[in-house]
Amino acid sequence: MILLAALLAAAVPVLPSPADIVAAAPLSAWRAVAPENLMLVETPRGTMAIELAPDFAPAHIAAIRALVAAGRFDAGAFTRVQDNYVVQWAARPGPGKTLTSGGAAAVAAGSTATPGGVAVGTGPGPAHPAILPAEYERPVKGLQITPLGSTDTYAPSGFADGWPVARDSKTGTAWLAHCYASVGVGRDNPPDTGDGSELYAVIGHGPRHLDRNITVVGRVIDGIADFSALARGTGPMGFYRTPAEQTVITRVRFATAADPRYEVLASASPAFAAYLQARANRTGFFVRPAGATDLCNVQVPVRRVAK
Amino acid sequence: MILLAALLAAAVPVLPSPADIVAAAPLSAWRAVAPENLMLVETPRGTMAIELAPDFAPAHIAAIRALVAAGRFDAGAFTRVQDNYVVQWAARPGPGKTLTSGGAAAVAAGSTATPGGVAVGTGPGPAHPAILPAEYERPVKGLQITPLGSTDTYAPSGFADGWPVARDSKTGTAWLAHCYASVGVGRDNPPDTGDGSELYAVIGHGPRHLDRNITVVGRVIDGIADFSALARGTGPMGFYRTPAEQTVITRVRFATAADPRYEVLASASPAFAAYLQARANRTGFFVRPAGATDLCNVQVPVRRVAK
Repeated sequence: MILLAALLAAAVPVLPSPADIVAAAPLSAWRAVAPENLMLVETPRGTMAIELAPDFAPAHIAAIRALVAAGRFDAGAFTRVQDNYVVQWAARPGPGKTLTSGGAAAVAAGSTATPGGVAVGTGPGPAHPAILPAEYERPVKGLQITPLGSTDTYAPSGFADGWPVARDSKTGTAWLAHCYASVGVGRDNPPDTGDGSELYAVIGHGPRHLDRNITVVGRVIDGIADFSALARGTGPMGFYRTPAEQTVITRVRFATAADPRYEVLASASPAFAAYLQARANRTGFFVRPAGATDLCNVQVPVRRVAK
Repeated sequence: MILLAALLAAAVPVLPSPADIVAAAPLSAWRAVAPENLMLVETPRGTMAIELAPDFAPAHIAAIRALVAAGRFDAGAFTRVQDNYVVQWAARPGPGKTLTSGGAAAVAAGSTATPGGVAVGTGPGPAHPAILPAEYERPVKGLQITPLGSTDTYAPSGFADGWPVARDSKTGTAWLAHCYASVGVGRDNPPDTGDGSELYAVIGHGPRHLDRNITVVGRVIDGIADFSALARGTGPMGFYRTPAEQTVITRVRFATAADPRYEVLASASPAFAAYLQARANRTGFFVRPAGATDLCNVQVPVRRVAK
């Protein structure tokens, strides 16, 4: 009987859960987040840590770096929270401008974007191009993409260096997908691509229809829960109606050696392959594993490294 | 030149947006929400209006009705808020039980569910079966399903009477999908299917891996933004660590003729077909329509009807 029990146990192995796989991943499976790409948005409510992806949006990220260096985000604010969509924050506007709702660059909530926008170069910040190049996609060449392994509704997709990406074989391009916590640059209508002074993070179901319509610059890797829980704005598109409702930004800066370090599970690692498989085939609580997963439901693991 | 401009305008028509289509939908395109299926969860923070789907989960909904009739949810509480996942609330526990974190039925956050659970029948409520039948799916027969029109990662899907549903042609079954605002019944491990005393609503990216693993009973059609903005719990799986963090439920009741009425855009209507098409092919702000949409990104329109 003991032998039989042992055989049965061997025949029906307890498969490791996604969490088990992450916990057991070796050091070599983790990619360090470079401090120079780790943007910290500090508020009285908490700090949001954002990893930027200069391989995908170099011009927009250069513009954001310049704004940060000039202190333009300090005393900026979270101006918009639209349920099941985005939180949006803005640099301090130039003279004669305000952060009040309606005057900000929009993120495609409806069919039309709100006109206006925080004009570039009107504030005390550095000069940079008023119209940045659209960085909605980049050549797929140079990226190592681990395929999702499931059919994607929108485009073939997978993970490159920890980023959820989709691709188009006809154009030979790839782009960062809009998933929960993705960070993009607000813009008005074309050819305006935004100037980096208004950013948003996704706080709802992945709005993949925004893919290739707006520049994605990174994703929140820590602290989003403090901001996804912000009160929703009651103005059009979730903008706050009054400045009093906004959450003020104390400071935005890039990480230094003194800050917490983060690591992302590397897409090319065997641990990530196992994780992907386990996300699509959940066990334990689950009586019927899905056998598939959509890109945004994978949730690339991130960890904060103890010093 | 005027003629040419007119011709060009005709050649490039301004396509109506999803919002335009909803605004123009005739009265006949709307299905009224029956008051007896409209459950109102009242709290000091706001009221959540939930449409229940007795065609999909009759036994669980009968159990919920009995709990509501017995006042078991009154003085219950929101006990769990897990970011990018669910808010969960619970009926008042029976004698000797508490609503403190960890003792509640779990919704599959990790590989294992928390043991325990609020036992059925220990409180002042009515007697009902301790183990309800699993209502994870139902026969597809009897449903009129409007196809999504895009490839679904998980299973062929569409809309039945305003509900996002997926189906399996091999088993001849269909089920309510886990999208933003979907409401389900918390459970522990099989064969426990929950007793209806702990419910959750999705507040993140559609966790479709839960489909057919848990009983979905309806969806929030109004008021979710007051609850998706609740502070996230810091205990395991997002449970609050202390009762003081919980939001108390004043009362749960079903709607009467005196309450606001709601209507859902009917899946079989031409207006819904146009809406679905427009959601997959956004115009205006969008420079590159996706040409597809995933099930949970459609967001079935609901309206509150003026009296």
